[in-house]
Formats: sequence, C-alpha cells, structure tokens
Amino acid sequence: MRKGEQTRATILQAALELASQFGLEGLTIGRLADRVQMSKSGAFAHFGSREELQIAVLREYEQRFAREVLVPALPLDRGLQRLRGMVRNWLERTALEADSGCLYIACATEYDDRPGEVRDVLVAMIRAWQRELTRAIKQAVETGELLASTDAEELVFQLYGIVLVLHHDARLLKSEGAIDRAERAFERLIASYRASAAHRS
Amino acid sequence: MRKGEQTRATILQAALELASQFGLEGLTIGRLADRVQMSKSGAFAHFGSREELQIAVLREYEQRFAREVLVPALPLDRGLQRLRGMVRNWLERTALEADSGCLYIACATEYDDRPGEVRDVLVAMIRAWQRELTRAIKQAVETGELLASTDAEELVFQLYGIVLVLHHDARLLKSEGAIDRAERAFERLIASYRASAAHRS
Repeated sequence: MRKGEQTRATILQAALELASQFGLEGLTIGRLADRVQMSKSGAFAHFGSREELQIAVLREYEQRFAREVLVPALPLDRGLQRLRGMVRNWLERTALEADSGCLYIACATEYDDRPGEVRDVLVAMIRAWQRELTRAIKQAVETGELLASTDAEELVFQLYGIVLVLHHDARLLKSEGAIDRAERAFERLIASYRASAAHRS
Repeated sequence: MRKGEQTRATILQAALELASQFGLEGLTIGRLADRVQMSKSGAFAHFGSREELQIAVLREYEQRFAREVLVPALPLDRGLQRLRGMVRNWLERTALEADSGCLYIACATEYDDRPGEVRDVLVAMIRAWQRELTRAIKQAVETGELLASTDAEELVFQLYGIVLVLHHDARLLKSEGAIDRAERAFERLIASYRASAAHRS
C-alpha cells in the first residue's frame, strides 16, 4: 500500500469508529482530525467533502459487512443451508457489534427524515443486501426446503425484524441472551415456511 | 388550565415536535426558543435544565402512547382479543408516525451508547410497555388461546421486531404496504403460538 492510500485507510478507520459512536452526522471534521492527529485540512485532503467522507465510511462498512456476513456463506449449499449461514453470520455480527452498533441500523433513524445523497447510498446498500437475502430464499424454495407459496420479500421483512430487535435489546436494554432469542425466533420463522408445515397453509 | 401550565404545554408540544425531527439530542435551547418565539431564558424557566426538558418530553410521549395504544385495548376481553387490540393500535400508531417517527425507536439508537438519566428513563418506559405486553400474553395463555408452553418474554421480543421493521421500512425505505406486511407477520407469529398448533410442538 502506498503512503497516500495508507493515510486514507487510517482516516477511514478512525471515521468508521467515530460514526459507530456518534452517528454519521456526528462525524465532524474536528473530531476526525483530533482522532488521527492531523490538521483539519490534512484529514480532508483525502476526501472532497464531509458528504464524500460519510459515503466513503458507508462503502467501507458495506465491504466489511459483505466480507463477514455474505462471503462466508457462499460456499454453502444453495438453499436453506446457505440462507441459514447468511442469517447466522448476520445475527452474530449484530450481537458482536453490540458495543459499537450496526451502522446501517444507527443510520436508519438518523437519515430516515434527512433526504440527500448519504441517505440514497444507505438505502441502496440495504436494498442490495435484501436482494441477496431474497435470492437465497428463492433458492431454498427451488430446492423444495421452503414452501412454494413462500413470499420471499415478506420473509426478508420478518428476518429484518429479528435483527433489528436483537440490536435494540442487546444495545439499549442490555438483555442477556438476546442472541439466543434471535436464533430461536429465526428457527421458528423458518419452521413456519418449511415444506413439512404444508398442512398448515 | 392556568397561564403558566398553558405556556408549559405549548413549549412541551414544540419540544416533542423538534425531538421527533432532530432527536432528543438535537433538541437545543436555540431551536426550541425559535419555535415558540420566546427568549431562551423564558423557554427554559419552565424546565430546570436541558436534561429535565428531555425527560419531560419522554414523559409526554409516554402518556400519549398509552392513551392511543394501551387504553383503547383495555375494555376488550382479556386474552387474545386484548393482545391483538394492543398490537394493532401499536402497529397503526407506528405506521401513522411514519412522518415523524416513534420517539422510543429514534431514541434507542441515540441513547444506546449514551449512559445517563435520559437513557435510564427511556429504558424504564420501554420495559413498562413490555410488561403490559407480557401481561396480555399471559392472560391469553390463561384463557387457553395461546399454548401453555408460550414464553411470554420471547413473544414480546418477536413482536418488538415486527414493530421495529415496520418503522424501518415505512420511514427509511418508504416501502408501500409495510403496515400490511407487519399485520401478516403478527398473525403468522400468533398462529405459531395458538393452541390449535399444538401438534407442532
């Protein structure tokens, strides 16, 4: 890595930590320069504007998310096994992040009434991840493991709810065992879509 | 209502609107004074400190929440009917609030890593609401409408997930039909705890 890239990576790492703590809107030039011990202009020379920095932080987060959640599940068999792998990685990451918080979730309430490019990028990332989940669900329908009547987008909605409540309970309420609850909720949900439950539909 | 109380109510209403828009941490003296067209000291004479104002806003929100979500469900028969009433009111309120946002949910990511009295008050309110839900679930077990094996706190966790994803999808993703999805998710969840599903457990 060349020196310019290295500095940029250092700044981005610090920005990601600050954003996890204070939100993307709390990511100020002053805080960032303090953290990396550079002048404000020095820190900002690597990004064109505060908005570009915020978007760079989101892109960095997206890459890490994909690397930890999606990629390790791709070698698994198509179908329920891969879907389960993706969701388990996602739940584990959400629980592990309980100290710093998921940037997507923290940003959701920050940007839901703040139109602009940062919001657009955030929404596009969440939708891209939901498309990956939708694809995995449809494959599990194709393998016959989930009912043919499964509405993939509806199931994604329900999965998202489990992750959101895990994040909420682990971080705000400091509930013990939130991850176990989330895993049981996931298995209960999947069971209700299993071909073996066909007599209920 | 006496003049002092009236002024206090006006300030509180403005503070609640500001908090819905900018978060409780975004509730600044300057913004509030601007909104009610008073001097900063005038606006603050009615509250001792910014923290007391934040807590007063939370208490006002809690009263409104109880009035719209819990109270209308209390005349319903104990058991599933009352639980369903509470959850439906909650879902409707969450969807209606899509323009302004639920203060509990917005505050969750604001305060999850911000210790202090505001956070403590927020957590106590959420726990109080969860206790109401737990009680309604236990009554539905007593009436035999939900399985005796129902873990009430686990079901509250799952219900919370549905409300969180409704809020997320309606506000951030602007998904059409999020409220219908949430209602179907609720009915699917309840069905998995119904006594008629006993053969599955």
